[in-house]
Amino acid sequence: MLNEDYLRLKALVDDHLLDFLPDIDQKSITLYDSMRYSLVNGGKRIRPVLLLAACEFCDFDIRLALPYACAVEYIHTYSLIHDDLPAMDDDDLRRGEPTNHKVFGEDIAILAGDGLLSSAFEVMMKDMLLYFDNPDMLKRRVRAAYEISKGSGCRGMVSGQIADIEACGKDCSKEFLDYIHLNKTAALMISAVRAGAYIAGADNDRLIDLTNYAECIGLAFQIVDDLLDVEGDESVTGKRSGKDKELEKCTFPSIYGYTESLNRLDELTNRAIEILSPYYEEADFFISLAKDLAKRVK
Amino acid sequence: MLNEDYLRLKALVDDHLLDFLPDIDQKSITLYDSMRYSLVNGGKRIRPVLLLAACEFCDFDIRLALPYACAVEYIHTYSLIHDDLPAMDDDDLRRGEPTNHKVFGEDIAILAGDGLLSSAFEVMMKDMLLYFDNPDMLKRRVRAAYEISKGSGCRGMVSGQIADIEACGKDCSKEFLDYIHLNKTAALMISAVRAGAYIAGADNDRLIDLTNYAECIGLAFQIVDDLLDVEGDESVTGKRSGKDKELEKCTFPSIYGYTESLNRLDELTNRAIEILSPYYEEADFFISLAKDLAKRVK
Repeated sequence: MLNEDYLRLKALVDDHLLDFLPDIDQKSITLYDSMRYSLVNGGKRIRPVLLLAACEFCDFDIRLALPYACAVEYIHTYSLIHDDLPAMDDDDLRRGEPTNHKVFGEDIAILAGDGLLSSAFEVMMKDMLLYFDNPDMLKRRVRAAYEISKGSGCRGMVSGQIADIEACGKDCSKEFLDYIHLNKTAALMISAVRAGAYIAGADNDRLIDLTNYAECIGLAFQIVDDLLDVEGDESVTGKRSGKDKELEKCTFPSIYGYTESLNRLDELTNRAIEILSPYYEEADFFISLAKDLAKRVK
Repeated sequence: MLNEDYLRLKALVDDHLLDFLPDIDQKSITLYDSMRYSLVNGGKRIRPVLLLAACEFCDFDIRLALPYACAVEYIHTYSLIHDDLPAMDDDDLRRGEPTNHKVFGEDIAILAGDGLLSSAFEVMMKDMLLYFDNPDMLKRRVRAAYEISKGSGCRGMVSGQIADIEACGKDCSKEFLDYIHLNKTAALMISAVRAGAYIAGADNDRLIDLTNYAECIGLAFQIVDDLLDVEGDESVTGKRSGKDKELEKCTFPSIYGYTESLNRLDELTNRAIEILSPYYEEADFFISLAKDLAKRVK
């Protein structure tokens, strides 16, 4: 399904994902084991791939952006571990394997999440130290890390998760649904492309176009996720279906209905493609990605 | 008990602690409420005070270090919220008030912790943007944030918490006990003084002396905490006593006994004072602090 560029970038992330974890003392090796368990348990790696692709789109050596790409995946992974906890979505299965707390216990799972979030910032800051004799590059990296902190924190992912929880079982407006999904899902994708663009020293036009593109595919991605929860094959999605309905979550199909959700998905996909079309073949990766994401439910 | 300088620095932290939280959308206001609840619920503020005191000791305007001081307190507060969760220490009371999850529920408490940790890094990175035309100051701040990330993450606090959990109910060596407490408690205090020193542009001697001092008082602080759990008055400590024994935690009194723990506390206090004595009255604050901490169990 995914194009060759995607697989190339994903392989780079997979190959280096563990390289940037801090050296953890043998006495705390369970922390490493539990973080590693969730990190290597598959995953599409869409956020780090977006970061690297944005960096490449802005004509910069993507290997120099790897610490930031991995940091974004650490953040995404911590959010999944905490999301799966009994007090949250209470999921036993993630990507077809037992969730972190089922294997390591809730206490270790909470700390593994905390450790991954901490590691994300540690790896970015450690990377910055390498650029002390190059203030321009240093500043780009500070901006990238700031973007990632915004997208993952209280003006991004965490605020979306809170809103998601609070909307459960309630009547939810379309505006509120957009707020949830923009923050819960799109925010970190937007941060990822912006971080990649900043690291590459992108001009403002590309930065804005990538931002708008990522907003569209971030929402599209969440619609697909919501639809797969309704109609998906558990052996393909790797998680139990029907969960959203059980938790009375506020989702695209619950608010718009299935068909209208598909229409919104089409609109967002077309809009994403339209935004980057002026770049012609330079934007091939992003255009294919938008199409491929939508195909997951077609 | 605490000296005037301590109260002055603590008041500065208390006055500005909420100023550096990100602007949280009204739709996610529960996130703000729950973070705020735990932030303003008293606390000694020892970590941010140490950061500011180190900065002042190195002759720098402490107001410029406030975002980092508050970041350290956000990190400490997130660790308390997660520590108190039913899956961790299962505490109902913190500083004499219901713990975060008792008020907001476990799901919100987990996210409030995540939000505080995210905010800590967001505030530091946002601060860095202000120094883009002053590379020297920018680098000092990157170093400070890196120190804080190390002290709070997988080579610091989180690794100590994992070791603490794993040692429960087991025979624990003195070496392992030191490892737990160095990481669980001292690491973030060490990071705090180092961050303050870096921001101030301290020379290497002061950096090293402050580091060694903080290691001593960090361990001393944990011994006091362990002893108060055995002998403390709940109305003073604000939390339930006897908890460590119940959880079969590996503590100073459980390994060394009460009297020998007091002796270790004295040793560490004297060592801390000795390290900074060569600075005479310049180090008055730190010397008083070491003495005052030990007095909590005398």
